[in-house]
Amino acid sequence: MNTAAQTPVTIDMIRAAAKRLDRHARRTPLLSSPFLDEIAGRRVWVKAECLQHTGSFKFRGAWAVVSGLDPATRAKGVIAFSSGNHAQGVAMAARQHQVPAVIIMPRDAPRLKIENTRALGAEVVLYDRATEDRDAIGAAMAAERGLTLIKPYDDPRVIAGQGTTGLEIAAQAASAGVTQADVIVCCGGGGLSGGIGLALEAEAPGLRLRTAEPQGFDDVARSLRSGRIERNAALTGSICDAIITPQPGDITFPILKRLAGPGLAVSDDEALEAMAQAFTRLKVVAEPGGAVALAAALYRADQIEGTDVIVTISGGNVDADVFIDALRRFGA
Amino acid sequence: MNTAAQTPVTIDMIRAAAKRLDRHARRTPLLSSPFLDEIAGRRVWVKAECLQHTGSFKFRGAWAVVSGLDPATRAKGVIAFSSGNHAQGVAMAARQHQVPAVIIMPRDAPRLKIENTRALGAEVVLYDRATEDRDAIGAAMAAERGLTLIKPYDDPRVIAGQGTTGLEIAAQAASAGVTQADVIVCCGGGGLSGGIGLALEAEAPGLRLRTAEPQGFDDVARSLRSGRIERNAALTGSICDAIITPQPGDITFPILKRLAGPGLAVSDDEALEAMAQAFTRLKVVAEPGGAVALAAALYRADQIEGTDVIVTISGGNVDADVFIDALRRFGA
Repeated sequence: MNTAAQTPVTIDMIRAAAKRLDRHARRTPLLSSPFLDEIAGRRVWVKAECLQHTGSFKFRGAWAVVSGLDPATRAKGVIAFSSGNHAQGVAMAARQHQVPAVIIMPRDAPRLKIENTRALGAEVVLYDRATEDRDAIGAAMAAERGLTLIKPYDDPRVIAGQGTTGLEIAAQAASAGVTQADVIVCCGGGGLSGGIGLALEAEAPGLRLRTAEPQGFDDVARSLRSGRIERNAALTGSICDAIITPQPGDITFPILKRLAGPGLAVSDDEALEAMAQAFTRLKVVAEPGGAVALAAALYRADQIEGTDVIVTISGGNVDADVFIDALRRFGA
Repeated sequence: MNTAAQTPVTIDMIRAAAKRLDRHARRTPLLSSPFLDEIAGRRVWVKAECLQHTGSFKFRGAWAVVSGLDPATRAKGVIAFSSGNHAQGVAMAARQHQVPAVIIMPRDAPRLKIENTRALGAEVVLYDRATEDRDAIGAAMAAERGLTLIKPYDDPRVIAGQGTTGLEIAAQAASAGVTQADVIVCCGGGGLSGGIGLALEAEAPGLRLRTAEPQGFDDVARSLRSGRIERNAALTGSICDAIITPQPGDITFPILKRLAGPGLAVSDDEALEAMAQAFTRLKVVAEPGGAVALAAALYRADQIEGTDVIVTISGGNVDADVFIDALRRFGA
């Protein structure tokens, strides 16, 4: 039985995306520090996707979709629903292809995020969460202009783009002499985790996918445990809001179920402490949701196996206030 | 007249150091952001040496020296005078070669720096600035144990090691299609600047070395102007203290004089603002002295030529308090 054949995302799609991303996305470094090794009790390797264009891995998936469209379709432009990292990734990928991007955001989104997305050349369309239906607005615009919708995670093209991170992890781990390790990935809808899992399966079978989430919003961990899609009870209430989604995706979950070990979850304070460690020891900026995998490596060592652990820092788009709070409470 | 022949540092020494550093030092990324381009009015490329091992370029020079010693000499160990980035670079390079490192520090050095240097395996010897002569203490220990002294900058082996940064800049700039640009380097004693200048001269002659310093401590800029070594009037009083030295080095200055364009200088506030920009737009942590080159690119645009500018962020070892201050005052 070839279960891999059931997934609509193949390693060939990931490799093709990597070719299209070459010289456009950054090959982010795999960082380490003896001080982090000391805390974790094993060697810790950090894939710093916060250093990716627009400050998160989302640029990869967006670029993969835009670059893969046929020219006539691409020229009409793309559309996305997001007020966060996905918005910026889509805006920048579209701009670099010189095609229009429409980003639908709630009217109460932080002004800075709206401004940043506009500054990246996107047309930002605001809607009222209480009275308007964003899907209807988006569908009407997409139909009228022939825009291509780029979903944040549950799309094989997006998952293939995020999976290029996994190809790099496989190569960088091999360079560092690491062939057996848990690879802990910050997990929202599962696009990054699923893509990395598929890449590792093909190129570094000794590296095992693990997911990390905020405590209380661990829909993926619970879904992995029960074997079926479980929902989060709430969607707000964690500082790691950027990676909170209602439930694992219909496309991503079967991939995670097949490839991921038990899910990990950390508290908000542990995420903030990991941000302070990344500041002090790695000199990179992690956002709370982007720090949950590092937090799991540092503070859930008993749930991890092996002499090495690899983690993603999936993004670094954090307000100064939140970062100051992390340094104040946990900085050296 | 071959003036290059007068320098005791050659491009062959830099290339040999690069071979020894391969897979031991990090090839740090060359980062960029359209938001920084907007401020500077030209494309800005940032060589993020804050992501180097121990958080600064100093690891390169230290590794270059330790790895180049004959095995019998190396086995006896190395010694350095420093309470900052040089200390950590030497300690880590020695530890990875499994040889002893002695670091001489003033007794009133920050406790965290002493602890970090010890944690990297070095023997820290403290002296009293008021009553003891650090050179005498160091000389006695070096003689007794046969330790090799690693100076912070005025040593051809160290300059060659720092120059490997320049080889990477030359290659990364070519990859990005940049062949003409000013390359602004954070400058203390001139080891990094001199090494980068020599590497660019050989490998990317369209890239011109510039130095950046804190205002009021611009001994290099003044020395470049007068054509002879000028001293700083004071050695304290800037937040960029990590890159303040009494005067350019006897070995480094002739290199700078031959290769560098006019020196640039920025205020402490501009350095802090550049740190906040590096946080928001690049997701890296810069220390104040490590941010002066970026500050010059952003806030001294009228003194820079061309459509592109390349800068170093030379280090990221900054206390949380100082970083919080930068974000509070200049963060988005």
